[in-house]
Amino acid sequence: MHAYRTHHCAQLRAADAGTTARLSGWVHRKRDHGGLLFIDLRDHHGVTQCVVPAGSPVFAAADRLRPESVVTVTGEVVAREGATVNDRLPTGAIELRVKELSVQSEAQVLPIQVAGEAEFPEDLRLRYRFLDLRREKPHRNLMLRSSVIASIRRRMIEGGFTEFQTPILTASSPEGARDFLVPARLHPGKFYALPQAPQQFKQLCMVAGFDRYFQIAPCFRDEASRADRSPGEFYQLDFEMSFVTQEDVFAAIEPVLHGVFEEFADWTGTRRAVTPAPFPRIPFDQAMLEFGSDKPDLRNPLRIADVTQHFAGSSFGLFAKIAASGGVIRAIPAPGAGSQPRRFFDQLNEWARGEGAGGLGYVTFENGAAAGPIAKNLEAERALALREQMGLKDGDAVFFAAGKEADAAKLAGKARTRIGTELGLVEKDAYRFCWVTDFPMYELNEETGQIDFSHNPFSMPQGELEALNTQDPLTIKAYQYDIVCNGIELSSGAIRNHRPDIMLRAFEIAGYGAEVVEARFGGMLNAFRYGAPPHGGSAPGIDRIVMLLADEPNIREVILFPMNQQAEDLMMGAPAEVEEARLKELSLKVVLPPAKK
Amino acid sequence: MHAYRTHHCAQLRAADAGTTARLSGWVHRKRDHGGLLFIDLRDHHGVTQCVVPAGSPVFAAADRLRPESVVTVTGEVVAREGATVNDRLPTGAIELRVKELSVQSEAQVLPIQVAGEAEFPEDLRLRYRFLDLRREKPHRNLMLRSSVIASIRRRMIEGGFTEFQTPILTASSPEGARDFLVPARLHPGKFYALPQAPQQFKQLCMVAGFDRYFQIAPCFRDEASRADRSPGEFYQLDFEMSFVTQEDVFAAIEPVLHGVFEEFADWTGTRRAVTPAPFPRIPFDQAMLEFGSDKPDLRNPLRIADVTQHFAGSSFGLFAKIAASGGVIRAIPAPGAGSQPRRFFDQLNEWARGEGAGGLGYVTFENGAAAGPIAKNLEAERALALREQMGLKDGDAVFFAAGKEADAAKLAGKARTRIGTELGLVEKDAYRFCWVTDFPMYELNEETGQIDFSHNPFSMPQGELEALNTQDPLTIKAYQYDIVCNGIELSSGAIRNHRPDIMLRAFEIAGYGAEVVEARFGGMLNAFRYGAPPHGGSAPGIDRIVMLLADEPNIREVILFPMNQQAEDLMMGAPAEVEEARLKELSLKVVLPPAKK
Repeated sequence: MHAYRTHHCAQLRAADAGTTARLSGWVHRKRDHGGLLFIDLRDHHGVTQCVVPAGSPVFAAADRLRPESVVTVTGEVVAREGATVNDRLPTGAIELRVKELSVQSEAQVLPIQVAGEAEFPEDLRLRYRFLDLRREKPHRNLMLRSSVIASIRRRMIEGGFTEFQTPILTASSPEGARDFLVPARLHPGKFYALPQAPQQFKQLCMVAGFDRYFQIAPCFRDEASRADRSPGEFYQLDFEMSFVTQEDVFAAIEPVLHGVFEEFADWTGTRRAVTPAPFPRIPFDQAMLEFGSDKPDLRNPLRIADVTQHFAGSSFGLFAKIAASGGVIRAIPAPGAGSQPRRFFDQLNEWARGEGAGGLGYVTFENGAAAGPIAKNLEAERALALREQMGLKDGDAVFFAAGKEADAAKLAGKARTRIGTELGLVEKDAYRFCWVTDFPMYELNEETGQIDFSHNPFSMPQGELEALNTQDPLTIKAYQYDIVCNGIELSSGAIRNHRPDIMLRAFEIAGYGAEVVEARFGGMLNAFRYGAPPHGGSAPGIDRIVMLLADEPNIREVILFPMNQQAEDLMMGAPAEVEEARLKELSLKVVLPPAKK
Repeated sequence: MHAYRTHHCAQLRAADAGTTARLSGWVHRKRDHGGLLFIDLRDHHGVTQCVVPAGSPVFAAADRLRPESVVTVTGEVVAREGATVNDRLPTGAIELRVKELSVQSEAQVLPIQVAGEAEFPEDLRLRYRFLDLRREKPHRNLMLRSSVIASIRRRMIEGGFTEFQTPILTASSPEGARDFLVPARLHPGKFYALPQAPQQFKQLCMVAGFDRYFQIAPCFRDEASRADRSPGEFYQLDFEMSFVTQEDVFAAIEPVLHGVFEEFADWTGTRRAVTPAPFPRIPFDQAMLEFGSDKPDLRNPLRIADVTQHFAGSSFGLFAKIAASGGVIRAIPAPGAGSQPRRFFDQLNEWARGEGAGGLGYVTFENGAAAGPIAKNLEAERALALREQMGLKDGDAVFFAAGKEADAAKLAGKARTRIGTELGLVEKDAYRFCWVTDFPMYELNEETGQIDFSHNPFSMPQGELEALNTQDPLTIKAYQYDIVCNGIELSSGAIRNHRPDIMLRAFEIAGYGAEVVEARFGGMLNAFRYGAPPHGGSAPGIDRIVMLLADEPNIREVILFPMNQQAEDLMMGAPAEVEEARLKELSLKVVLPPAKK
């Protein structure tokens, strides 16, 4: 017989009754029922009820066991009878009558309980993460993460992608966030940096002639922690393809995302719908108009419309004035809201004021006419034209966000979310994907009056060199796109600018001379000078995908050993001070900032 | 038609003749044959011959193309005829008659050639790695690496293992090598460390109740570079299992290693044999005796034997004296070597002197008797007994390594390799695996006279607490094992010591008090105090596995973007100096060592 187990703890069935079995696991629960000792023995796979009869030679040892001690038990598998059968447990048809028991590891009194539903403070959970992970939900979450990543890998490989490991000790990158630095002992005064993303390496893979690269890539940013961003490190499905258009990129990754979400759609116990491929493509301008956001949540059926024309020159002076001064009026439909109490409208107005807006005006429609404070001052035919444009009917309402275009769009977007939620219109149990495309290449910096890059300076401008040389820069779109699920951006991506001549011109428009570009991005530029293919890709966040599937709003719930929000590993005690000798080896000296008083 | 390609460059066949196709790729070679321009167009998949006829409107543009420029060509697929068919090329039955050509990226004059077999200095190759990787062999090596890792992952998952990502920003570990440190900006004066291996995390996974963990794990050691060790980072197949014996660990990983090696056994074009599972298990003591090494190369059929008894008290004074003073005489058989010229024996003797030994004595057997310098002084019946023990016959020879046991074993091991190689006895085209088991727990430090840990202090001693309390420590074996292939150690592994009481006692024997152990390894010890399962594992090196399969002695040949031997990334320019402001943020100051004169 095996030293530790003949079966795992979710394996024994009624058919095994009468056989001798050996199990090993943790003492999940222990109960004394009239001299019989019941032990729920738990391992990775499940739980089996073990019984130590009164008078057994191992009774005393079993009785002494504290929860979470590890034991090996051997005995006869016995069928349970009648009411003692437990249908909720895969092993509920049997129990193990313990004849032998050996204690592999005694547990001390626990700082957090494993059995049960009690909640514990996060710092305590993280300090004793090895206990926390024994609990059902964290254990399941991490198994989900692992399964999701394995599924993504399988699908990427089936899609013709090749996984490579790019360097983790590398050079500081020109991306936005802060790098972590690593002192180079062999090169005094010099530092490696941890990659914020393998962006340059994956592009160099394309330049090196590999066709379809991917990597479940560890990425590092020395940034503040947020609920959806772990401090320090995170993982992304980094991928890149050569000789592709934007549509090729979409066609390659949509089946992967759709497939993974379909595969785990019922993980939480409720079947969730997933957008079929091809996912909707929404140009950035349309997204800002209809959703007031570049991260549209398509579970919300409401669509914002521009209704400036109906107010321009109207008798409703406030909006007419805004329209006349170049502002816009955006309308958020609220189907069926006409029957809502006055409080509903007042609370939305209050909320808008809290958001810094003047308020959230509205019109309701009843008996074929418009009603409400605004309607009183608006020409009836204008109100009806507005109603027709919005496709509204009696019993519906419409809210307005007015002001400068950017402000009005943003407020309308937030109001859309709130109204959709309050009216119960937002689809439940669904993963709704879309691509947001055609991001502007440049934007006007209102402070400086200069033209800045709007997003990624390394994306290919639509129209390429000709557009840069002939178009108003603010009208140029980039081959840049975001993949969004339920209003959460999983990643941006782009068809890259692989042409040094176009890149230098693109930077020139944003006010950077060639010498600056060569100095800062010379590595990539030079690589492109030896034959670079057109290429593009994206990098959906793994942690966010798992958060969505696990329905966990806190990223730390889907990471094995996460740091806390202060970027500390409480379990391992990192970061920590190091000996002076180590620092000397690294040619470094700590210079602490003056203590705060 | 797709903007870049209807087919890739290894796809078109005779059956496609008459159709119009579009290809994109790099100009691999270009030849002008009597006004016809031939372009070998290359992409990731292969090469297609493209022809630009004289007088074509794109001739001039094609003629100007430098090698490695990226182009898109469109034209008719034409069947080649007669002698122009190229059987060595998958697309050799056709060529593409180019009608349209567009240049996607012009290449400058190249620092290293992609086409052809020319060799270039390693630093130049690494600086232009994106060009180097376009060459056939590096490209193939990296594809092999990716396939090997994908195969390992698939096999591990099929074996019931779950992959987890353990932290990369963590605490300094108590292992042997030097950590890389990462300054923690948010915690002035404190540092994270990059993991030398996820050893503690994988053990904590077991404590957390996950049954079978694995990870293709990035590991970091700030160590000098060697041919088989890349500076900085490397990857290992890290795995760990709960409730297992040593044999369970072997049984879990043998099919993975055997399967992967079988799968890629003909990668280099020659089919190579692979040891079937179960792999031979060789106890450490036997390995040191028979192979003179704890990394036996089983491709070499020679086995060393201890022949001290035949020389003890013999007339061959040199060896008799060694035997009398506690030394040993080890014999390396040399079947068929009797017919070798005198030079063969002299050169081996010279070689042994170069190794610091007194020489490499030998005996040959001919006409039923022993011959050679030693035989003259050795009693004939002793020589015959020796011959019988070694199973030798007329025409064979035997060499001797004599001295202190450790020295003699080591010399015998090296002589075995040399003799086996020179006699052409070493099996070719084979991967020969074995486990070396039963490593000693402790060894005597000859300098201090103290008892030291022999290998890993965290392995479970065989006999557990009882052995520690009752046995001579130098006789205690550990549940520690190495997996060896062709004389190369792929990994060590162990059944871990999961019991704080046994660990404290094990350290006590090696001279460490409980307070020292608690201070240095308290994290793990404490985790074990809340219920730890018996567990064990190993971590075969991925880079070494790929080196073996690719038949590459240099580890940099199987890494995508390797650092050079000075731990520099010449392509990205790492490590590099950083701005003073960055250091200030990190509360650090560089203190350069005084310049050398």
